[in-house]
Amino acid sequence: MLGLMQDWPLLCHRIIDHAAKVHSGREVVTRSVEGPIHRTNYAEIRGRALKLAQRLDRQGIKLGDRVATIAWNTWRHLEAWYGIMGIGAVCHTVNPRLFPDQIAWIINHAEDRIVMTDITFIPILEKIADRLPSVERYIVLTDKVHMPQTALKNAVPYEDWIAEADGDFTWKTFDENTAAAMCYTSGTTGNPKGVVYSHRSNVLHSMIVNSADALGAASKDTMLPMVPLFHANSWGIAFSAPSMGTKLVMPGAKLDGASVYELLSSEKVTFTAGVPTVWLMLLQHMETNNLRLPDLKVVICGGSAAPRSVIKAFDDMGIEVRHSWGMTEMSSRGTAGALQGKFSHLKGDAKLDRLQMQGYAPFMVEMKITDDAGNELPWDGTTPGRLKVRGPAISGAYYRVNDNILDGEGFFDTGDVATLDEYGYVRITDRSKDVIKSGGEWISSIDLENLAVEHPKVAEAAVIGIHHPKWGERPLLILQVRKGESATREEILGFMDGKIAKWWMPDDVAFVDSIPHTATGKILKTALREQFRGYSFPNAAA
Amino acid sequence: MLGLMQDWPLLCHRIIDHAAKVHSGREVVTRSVEGPIHRTNYAEIRGRALKLAQRLDRQGIKLGDRVATIAWNTWRHLEAWYGIMGIGAVCHTVNPRLFPDQIAWIINHAEDRIVMTDITFIPILEKIADRLPSVERYIVLTDKVHMPQTALKNAVPYEDWIAEADGDFTWKTFDENTAAAMCYTSGTTGNPKGVVYSHRSNVLHSMIVNSADALGAASKDTMLPMVPLFHANSWGIAFSAPSMGTKLVMPGAKLDGASVYELLSSEKVTFTAGVPTVWLMLLQHMETNNLRLPDLKVVICGGSAAPRSVIKAFDDMGIEVRHSWGMTEMSSRGTAGALQGKFSHLKGDAKLDRLQMQGYAPFMVEMKITDDAGNELPWDGTTPGRLKVRGPAISGAYYRVNDNILDGEGFFDTGDVATLDEYGYVRITDRSKDVIKSGGEWISSIDLENLAVEHPKVAEAAVIGIHHPKWGERPLLILQVRKGESATREEILGFMDGKIAKWWMPDDVAFVDSIPHTATGKILKTALREQFRGYSFPNAAA
Ligand SMILES: Nc1ncnc2c1ncn2[C@@H]1O[C@H](COP(=O)(O)OP(=O)(O)OP(=O)(O)O)[C@@H](O)[C@H]1O
Ligand SMILES: Nc1ncnc2c1ncn2[C@@H]1O[C@H](COP(=O)(O)OP(=O)(O)OP(=O)(O)O)[C@@H](O)[C@H]1O
Ligand SMILES: [Mg+2]
Ligand SMILES: [Mg+2]
Repeated sequence: MLGLMQDWPLLCHRIIDHAAKVHSGREVVTRSVEGPIHRTNYAEIRGRALKLAQRLDRQGIKLGDRVATIAWNTWRHLEAWYGIMGIGAVCHTVNPRLFPDQIAWIINHAEDRIVMTDITFIPILEKIADRLPSVERYIVLTDKVHMPQTALKNAVPYEDWIAEADGDFTWKTFDENTAAAMCYTSGTTGNPKGVVYSHRSNVLHSMIVNSADALGAASKDTMLPMVPLFHANSWGIAFSAPSMGTKLVMPGAKLDGASVYELLSSEKVTFTAGVPTVWLMLLQHMETNNLRLPDLKVVICGGSAAPRSVIKAFDDMGIEVRHSWGMTEMSSRGTAGALQGKFSHLKGDAKLDRLQMQGYAPFMVEMKITDDAGNELPWDGTTPGRLKVRGPAISGAYYRVNDNILDGEGFFDTGDVATLDEYGYVRITDRSKDVIKSGGEWISSIDLENLAVEHPKVAEAAVIGIHHPKWGERPLLILQVRKGESATREEILGFMDGKIAKWWMPDDVAFVDSIPHTATGKILKTALREQFRGYSFPNAAA
Repeated sequence: MLGLMQDWPLLCHRIIDHAAKVHSGREVVTRSVEGPIHRTNYAEIRGRALKLAQRLDRQGIKLGDRVATIAWNTWRHLEAWYGIMGIGAVCHTVNPRLFPDQIAWIINHAEDRIVMTDITFIPILEKIADRLPSVERYIVLTDKVHMPQTALKNAVPYEDWIAEADGDFTWKTFDENTAAAMCYTSGTTGNPKGVVYSHRSNVLHSMIVNSADALGAASKDTMLPMVPLFHANSWGIAFSAPSMGTKLVMPGAKLDGASVYELLSSEKVTFTAGVPTVWLMLLQHMETNNLRLPDLKVVICGGSAAPRSVIKAFDDMGIEVRHSWGMTEMSSRGTAGALQGKFSHLKGDAKLDRLQMQGYAPFMVEMKITDDAGNELPWDGTTPGRLKVRGPAISGAYYRVNDNILDGEGFFDTGDVATLDEYGYVRITDRSKDVIKSGGEWISSIDLENLAVEHPKVAEAAVIGIHHPKWGERPLLILQVRKGESATREEILGFMDGKIAKWWMPDDVAFVDSIPHTATGKILKTALREQFRGYSFPNAAA
């Protein structure tokens, strides 16, 4: 017996239809790439997205064709998402911070037919354009006045191009499992892998994000996504904000502390989301200039482990900081670190301890941890295991990769190692590729890094496992000190001593000028392992 | 091209799985029908629901079979929902306040195989049992100690019955469009009609309810649903609360002001939801005893138009009151009256005016208003039209009724008449069957009723259209005055004069001892029209 409810497929463009109807005048404010602040609203965004859809359709872009965007967070980029998806084409967001070779590889792998780009990235594209045979034309996200000279094939300013359409167009309809978007992973552990979102998964994910403990912004709220539209599906914000009628503030190309503070403050932003690096920049700017953000209520911090100092700084200002863990493959939301009722009374270090965990899974994200053989491990808060996940907005396969990536129960291995406690709180202790196995036991590199950066002289810390004749592997602590500071091995190890189990203490400390990062700001341990390939511990003489 | 995300059907029992895993210790507190306060949690609820599922399965209850519940809001009733749905059977909630004949008609129409009932309703069932051929056995939601003597076929106490199962059972899996539950409409305008929810529609609806402007409770919140599980899908709360890990407080059989206040206060409830009648009782109790509810943050008021006095009373206490409109056919959420950013600064009467509207549609509820011929009418805040809706949690057909209930665009006619403004705010002015057509123009009976009840002597007001030789129809105002009061026609009309258009003024006022209500507390205008069938206006002499 079937239910007798309406057949209403979950399609992304229905979100912008809703916003344009019920929250038509709600603003989308952008620091434009060209410079000035630009203001529009959801009704206009939809109208222009329809023009784009019509123009793409006339160009012969069909269901399933890939259209790439390489662009900052702006209103035009948002229009591009809805315009592309609204005809059943696939919006492929490309991360401009990848190496040019990686960008070329990704565009070719996706076989993008059109590339929509900000002015900023024209030089990169010009360098690789002759290696991109599938690309038929480039749309530059600007107007005629700001259009630079470029050799890119059939390049045309976005504003002129969509002006060729009159907007008298209706979205296409299709099955909700149709591909809507593609995003490649950050390439931290190897080459980026192609994740293909469906309309259904995007809509369901936006509903997860809209729930109170995940993000839960209301229509009266104002959201500034520091997380780029090209990073892991923009953490769902490009869908969740219009679906609720939340005002959007787009930071464009300027992500430095001063620029971000200015927008947060002048637009009275109440919710924001981004990686730890941008919060470090913002907090430093605020501290130096003794600034406050009285309207800001919630900061989502994710993408890599949030330093305790960042959590404490926001918490001290009375701003709720939610540490989130997620992946490109999870659309991106895996957890959110809201405090459950049981913990809402916590204060001081106990509170920070809880906030520094990665939070717990929302409904629609199922979790388990297992040993290497796939046996489930207990949720006791101490046993680390491979974290595996299941849900309707989680990858079941990579694009053009035939491997089965699900286990017998349909769970996807995140590649992360974590503990889970009885309240469902996750603590990410490592990537399984970064885990240090000493005498058969696991040492968490993230825990060591978190502790080391608490030392006032340390700017950033990375721990890698180095072969040890007796223990198999032992931790090497690699440090970048703060500008103008210098530190010694003994000073740092002395600071750490007593705060962790004795056998976790790094066997050595190496100081480097800078720690290498991925395109999304994570520590690139593959590069560090390469760099320290010849290294052996002073105490390693067999 | 399809997305490459996991195939994870939206199934109701996955909600209780999530709650039992991530919010296992979160409490469900009930004022039990037997008397004492009962405490359990989501992990236990799931364990017992699994036992019920196993026991039903052993009884031969199969996919698609209907199992009825006639019960108050208790933990056992909640277990029954998940246990029944978890094997693909259909949980048919029956409203015990219907006339016995209606109850019999509904149970027969649904062909329920099992009836699960509270002690309270045994006498009603005993009266109609010999007319219920499809029912094979009765499960009484109590334990052996409290089990009354009854002639009901194969009657057994719930606790004994589920104790026959050991709970070593796994939910069945099936397509997400499988029927999960049934609920008949309230029978305000005719005979109740059978609405059949699917697993998909229930899960999607719970996600709507979880969004900030609809309900948006967090895991740290405590929710007391005054709305019964048998009323319009419990407004989604039986799903939304466990999906978020929100603590639940169940009022059982005691809905009077004192009992409800006691629970709201002692359990520090933060969210609650119910029909205007229960709020009137609560507010009167609080006023009489000079009480406060410092923990309560949000009150949802829906099911029929919320009196301004109720809205004002909560607002004066600093409690956010959200006026919601919905229907059994909408699972039930149609709108919620949170204040959009544009209106959040409002004060005094301007604020009350906005709060008294029925709010706006969340994402996944599409709306239009049309004239009788189906032409769309403008969202100008003044033009009333037939309100039509579309979405994945809205009925596409009634159970065992062959009529097509959708228009050419797939919209369902709500039977309500409303205005929509440019911000999407709905104002319900009438049922289309209750609309008064005077000289070709519509007069809103709800507006007249709202105004009349503002008179201090008036307890309740109903307006019906009575034939008029000149105008076609004119409004008759029917009043029930407060206990101990008496009022005159002139007094009331004088009070209304100047507050509405002259031609809206009722042509006469009739005083009655009591205004008849439906099983869900709505004014039963069909009965009033019957009662005033012979009436003609004093001014109606042709
Ligand atoms: N809050 C967090 N704390 C710790 N680690 C996090 C957090 N959020 C995200 N991560 C890390 O980021 C990963 C997901 O990142 P993303 O999808 O951008 O690509 P990547 O895993 O870095 O790259 P690749 O999969 O190509 O190696 C997670 O698997 C996890 O290792
Ligand atoms: N906030 C509200 N303001 C005004 N009317 C409301 C409100 N909420 C619900 N209603 C009325 O209740 C109706 C839905 O009620 P329900 O589904 O319980 O059955 P019913 O419509 O009363 O009965 P039937 O359909 O059998 O005649 C709506 O169509 C509307 O007329
Ligand atoms: Mg990864
Ligand atoms: Mg109805």
